[in-house]
Amino acid sequence: TEHHRTCRLDINKPQHVLYVVGTSLDVSIYRSAPPSSKSFSVKCTPQVKYSISPPTPETSHQSQIPLNRNTSLLISMDRASEFENESKLSVRYYNEDRYAVGLAVLHLTAVEISLDVDADRDGIVEENNPNKGSWKWGPSGYGAILLVNCDSESKFCKNEDYNSKQEFIFNLSDLKDMSPMKLRTRGPSRLPKGYKLMMHICLGDSEKIRVFGSKSGNKQVNNAENSSSVKDYPVVLGPEVLSQEVPYPGGNAEMDFHVEGLDFPDKDFDGLVTINLSLLKPISDAVPETPIFTDKVMFRVAPWIMTPNTLQPEEVFVCRTSDNQPFLKEIKDLVTKSGYKLKICEPFMNRGDRWIQDELEFGFVDSPHHQFPVVLDSPRDGELKNFPCKVLLGPDFGYVTREPQSDEVSTMDSFGNLEVSPPVTVNGKKYPLGRIIIGVAFPTAKNGRNMTKVVQDFLWAQRVQKPIALFSDWLVVGHVDEFMTFVPAPDRKGFRLLLASPDAAYKLFKDLKNNGHGQARMFDGFPKERQITVEEILGDRVLLNHNNYVQSCIDWNRDVLKKELGLDDDDIIDLPILFKLEKKNDGRVVAFYPDMVNMIVLGKNLGIPKPFGPKVNGRCALETEMCSLMGGLGLNCTFIDDYYSYHKNLGEVHCGSNVRRKPFRFQWWNMEL
Amino acid sequence: TEHHRTCRLDINKPQHVLYVVGTSLDVSIYRSAPPSSKSFSVKCTPQVKYSISPPTPETSHQSQIPLNRNTSLLISMDRASEFENESKLSVRYYNEDRYAVGLAVLHLTAVEISLDVDADRDGIVEENNPNKGSWKWGPSGYGAILLVNCDSESKFCKNEDYNSKQEFIFNLSDLKDMSPMKLRTRGPSRLPKGYKLMMHICLGDSEKIRVFGSKSGNKQVNNAENSSSVKDYPVVLGPEVLSQEVPYPGGNAEMDFHVEGLDFPDKDFDGLVTINLSLLKPISDAVPETPIFTDKVMFRVAPWIMTPNTLQPEEVFVCRTSDNQPFLKEIKDLVTKSGYKLKICEPFMNRGDRWIQDELEFGFVDSPHHQFPVVLDSPRDGELKNFPCKVLLGPDFGYVTREPQSDEVSTMDSFGNLEVSPPVTVNGKKYPLGRIIIGVAFPTAKNGRNMTKVVQDFLWAQRVQKPIALFSDWLVVGHVDEFMTFVPAPDRKGFRLLLASPDAAYKLFKDLKNNGHGQARMFDGFPKERQITVEEILGDRVLLNHNNYVQSCIDWNRDVLKKELGLDDDDIIDLPILFKLEKKNDGRVVAFYPDMVNMIVLGKNLGIPKPFGPKVNGRCALETEMCSLMGGLGLNCTFIDDYYSYHKNLGEVHCGSNVRRKPFRFQWWNMEL
Ligand SMILES: [Ca+2]
Ligand SMILES: [Ca+2]
Ligand SMILES: [Ca+2]
Ligand SMILES: [Ca+2]
Repeated sequence: TEHHRTCRLDINKPQHVLYVVGTSLDVSIYRSAPPSSKSFSVKCTPQVKYSISPPTPETSHQSQIPLNRNTSLLISMDRASEFENESKLSVRYYNEDRYAVGLAVLHLTAVEISLDVDADRDGIVEENNPNKGSWKWGPSGYGAILLVNCDSESKFCKNEDYNSKQEFIFNLSDLKDMSPMKLRTRGPSRLPKGYKLMMHICLGDSEKIRVFGSKSGNKQVNNAENSSSVKDYPVVLGPEVLSQEVPYPGGNAEMDFHVEGLDFPDKDFDGLVTINLSLLKPISDAVPETPIFTDKVMFRVAPWIMTPNTLQPEEVFVCRTSDNQPFLKEIKDLVTKSGYKLKICEPFMNRGDRWIQDELEFGFVDSPHHQFPVVLDSPRDGELKNFPCKVLLGPDFGYVTREPQSDEVSTMDSFGNLEVSPPVTVNGKKYPLGRIIIGVAFPTAKNGRNMTKVVQDFLWAQRVQKPIALFSDWLVVGHVDEFMTFVPAPDRKGFRLLLASPDAAYKLFKDLKNNGHGQARMFDGFPKERQITVEEILGDRVLLNHNNYVQSCIDWNRDVLKKELGLDDDDIIDLPILFKLEKKNDGRVVAFYPDMVNMIVLGKNLGIPKPFGPKVNGRCALETEMCSLMGGLGLNCTFIDDYYSYHKNLGEVHCGSNVRRKPFRFQWWNMEL
Repeated sequence: TEHHRTCRLDINKPQHVLYVVGTSLDVSIYRSAPPSSKSFSVKCTPQVKYSISPPTPETSHQSQIPLNRNTSLLISMDRASEFENESKLSVRYYNEDRYAVGLAVLHLTAVEISLDVDADRDGIVEENNPNKGSWKWGPSGYGAILLVNCDSESKFCKNEDYNSKQEFIFNLSDLKDMSPMKLRTRGPSRLPKGYKLMMHICLGDSEKIRVFGSKSGNKQVNNAENSSSVKDYPVVLGPEVLSQEVPYPGGNAEMDFHVEGLDFPDKDFDGLVTINLSLLKPISDAVPETPIFTDKVMFRVAPWIMTPNTLQPEEVFVCRTSDNQPFLKEIKDLVTKSGYKLKICEPFMNRGDRWIQDELEFGFVDSPHHQFPVVLDSPRDGELKNFPCKVLLGPDFGYVTREPQSDEVSTMDSFGNLEVSPPVTVNGKKYPLGRIIIGVAFPTAKNGRNMTKVVQDFLWAQRVQKPIALFSDWLVVGHVDEFMTFVPAPDRKGFRLLLASPDAAYKLFKDLKNNGHGQARMFDGFPKERQITVEEILGDRVLLNHNNYVQSCIDWNRDVLKKELGLDDDDIIDLPILFKLEKKNDGRVVAFYPDMVNMIVLGKNLGIPKPFGPKVNGRCALETEMCSLMGGLGLNCTFIDDYYSYHKNLGEVHCGSNVRRKPFRFQWWNMEL
């Protein structure tokens, strides 16, 4: 709706009004009428348009119009003035005898003012988009987008070297992370005396954004990195500056601003921020200015987005430890064969901590003007804790973390317990970026372990990958990647959910026995006391009972995943995996042999923990089954021996690796939310 | 969508399954098949229904159906069992030669479980409403409603007597404030061994609600107040109890629960809470139970709602002080004449603080089962601070407050600065409960004063009366009731907005002068030095300048109100009121003569500060004008002398009074939000 401004006439002295193109001046004719007046007439210069309300039928400009208590004038102008008081409107009042008894004169100066952003999300700051002040999701949506400028700036990193005083320092290379904003003005060479332009934000938003200006004023800066220094980009607004005057350059001008986000959406921050630009009118020295016009633009801070296994890998990360040389070689062969880059985290950085899956999760942020990867640092903070900040964080590589207030971090906070599904459609509702999956305890459980609240709040607040909470507290380590993963598939929904399945394992072992392989041994080649025959496994009633329990836990999660991801049974593949109960760990559970579902997915190549199953005709029956199941999807299995270096330490290939993947091509703001 | 539960068959031993009516059991035929099996057949007792997926065309129960990897059975039952293992389903497997090679038996016990609330908002707890687990606004909406049980319980009141230890004590009369909830069960006399029912809430919700049970078990309690004691209503869930087992009574049973809200919606609480009921399945002694079925209900906590001047008064409140006896008598006469109750706050309680408008705001909460008034206590905390808690709070009279964390309370936190409009429709958007109006400083102002954040957050979070922020910091006292009010009207939108208007005052004074009354005196009868003639007022250029400033401040608010309430100029009446600048108060402004807009509205009777204007033919010209303006709306003006007792202390009639009004008949949950 159009902005109307109440404006006064005065028969005693001419009024000078600064008018903003696009608004209307609402003038009560009656209010300023001399006591004896009964009618009035209006005259104006060519640029001024006006209408009389209530409308007076069949009267011309010059004729005398009857004056009523509610007679008002709506004034507008089409374009900016070239000099002050360029235009004029006057109202003449007449008495009963049609004699003039008063004249009220309005001198008008028109300016055009528009605070502009890329509200249509095409990467270009258009002029005065009618939707720039609000935000809507979807392909027919609108509203500008802001990135958290979380790359390279050390302040986002909790390490000792950080100097929190340097709040206003940024690199010129950061300009491309920022959202462009322009102030476009048009009018006389200067504003009438005392008027000024003020940019301002509310207290709540001030912690979330910072606005930089350009000292070069109204000229475009083309090669910012080459020709300027950070001093040319002074802070206009931010946590310490809620409002600041901005100059009015005069004539036809365009001022550049650069806006950076300071924090991701969270429980207490919906991600929306508004920047206002007000034109202030002077009253007198004694009293403050009043705003006569306010323009505003709205940004949404881009969410942090995870990348599922179906996206193309870019880099694979593993740790080098004193005891994992053979593992490292096998991983390297796989990664090289697959055509990706391998990055090794060396012992001086990992300090013996091999669980690089658990210390961090790779994601990215996206906007029409820029995108870059962002690592979410887990509050787990093992010996690897400096890796995300010291190694990953850098130019165009962002960093974010959430730190629990108290000392409430548990194994559930490791990011092997944070995964994401491929894109799905559930009862018609689309999740084009998939859904985040975490593991928790049942709400009814006594002493249940859960992912810490600040991280859960963060994940939910990103909104675009609405999380699903699975039940994983039945596992000693407690991570969802111990019983599930996703692999790409050429058919159906483009992927399969793989689930660990004791039932499938028992079925396979029974088949082996039925086919005369009851004496085949697991862990062939390992010390004698570790080996166990198919018949021994099938005969162990306690093991069977515990695996029935595990199957019921996994089945519960299977039902949740089917419902929340819209899956059919045909979208799920059961992998033959057995578990065993650890009495010493509150009756929680670990994998009985290397947990094949805990794999690394690199395009069509899978790096799978080598299960050391019973051999049939010299070939491991578990590997045969895996190859058969995955081969049907066109996937290649590489079995990697992680037995001593990872499995015995209660993790496998997935726990010991991490993959940075290409971002989604789908743009999150095109979601219908 | 229907709840599917994955369920296993076992050819080695019969399985016992507890089935919940309304769900489906999803059984993989393949998973439990003996290795040699190629086909299967299904048999079941009459209550059991099943379907085979993928469908096998043209086969009867007895025939042998080919077995595939993805063959599954979907089992359901229509009604509860009368005894354990009442029903049965069996799957027989056959080998290539069509000989039976295995039999898997499922013993089924069916129960009906439904956690029920009044999701259709008719005051009755219906059975298993399909929408009970979610919440939707509007006449076609659904979802149950919860009241904050903020009446009579002393814990909501910040006074020294409060004993915070008594968290679980409530009065039986509180039962009617609580929302009824029922657990309906049907089935055998007891659940199979080890199964149990658990009610639970999440950590976030646990601070917001408390659930009480009924010791009388599954029988209806009709006269709770008469026949029972609070011990019959033990706490089931609450801030300290996130989950609790609830008994399964057996047969056809109904258990009563009572749910109370503990806090109003706020910035970090959207008002929605969910209560879950899970059926837990035992696994073994060593491992925790797993939920096999969860039912849930959702409540929204009712918002606090303000009552505009257009609603019928119930009680009028004023303070007795040492110096306000004449004022009190005039108010009493007006209230009595109008037919309402007057409540006087005596000196021992007000301790000399006469600003009863500022210390509190009356509102109410509403639900399909109950409604009652709730006072919002201002953080102002003058000498009147104990009044809301010690006098107003009581049975069926609730109390709520928000306390700023730091010492940031200012005059803007007085509730003369918190008002509410009558119902409006703005560009098609309906506000059937009106909109809250508060006063703040301009965001660009240096040293601006604002209503404290916790109160603003509270008001915005109620949602149903979306607040409008006006600019009131230009006044010394800074309250919106110094320049605006609403009165009922028989036409148009049902009300008029009254605005103080220096322009209207100057117009009136000029008229007086023109008609020969230039020497008429304001404050006639007051000491000589206080009196001032019409001509003196008109001749004071400084006063005129300051009032032009005031008019521009009020015009700014006028424009906001027109836009945000969808008003035309004809919905607004300008009252002739002058202001003056106080140099000692940062150039802020006070009323020049008693501020007539600061009135008390009692139906068609208005109690207006007596302005002591210049007399024409023995009658005050300002009163004449007021009577003329208000008379056109059928309203009667009573002018009350508040000059020495209120006006000289920078307040008027409205500041010194408060009115509790009848709640809206419109029910807030019928809003379209
Ligand atoms: Ca654009
Ligand atoms: Ca992960
Ligand atoms: Ca009902
Ligand atoms: Ca009030």
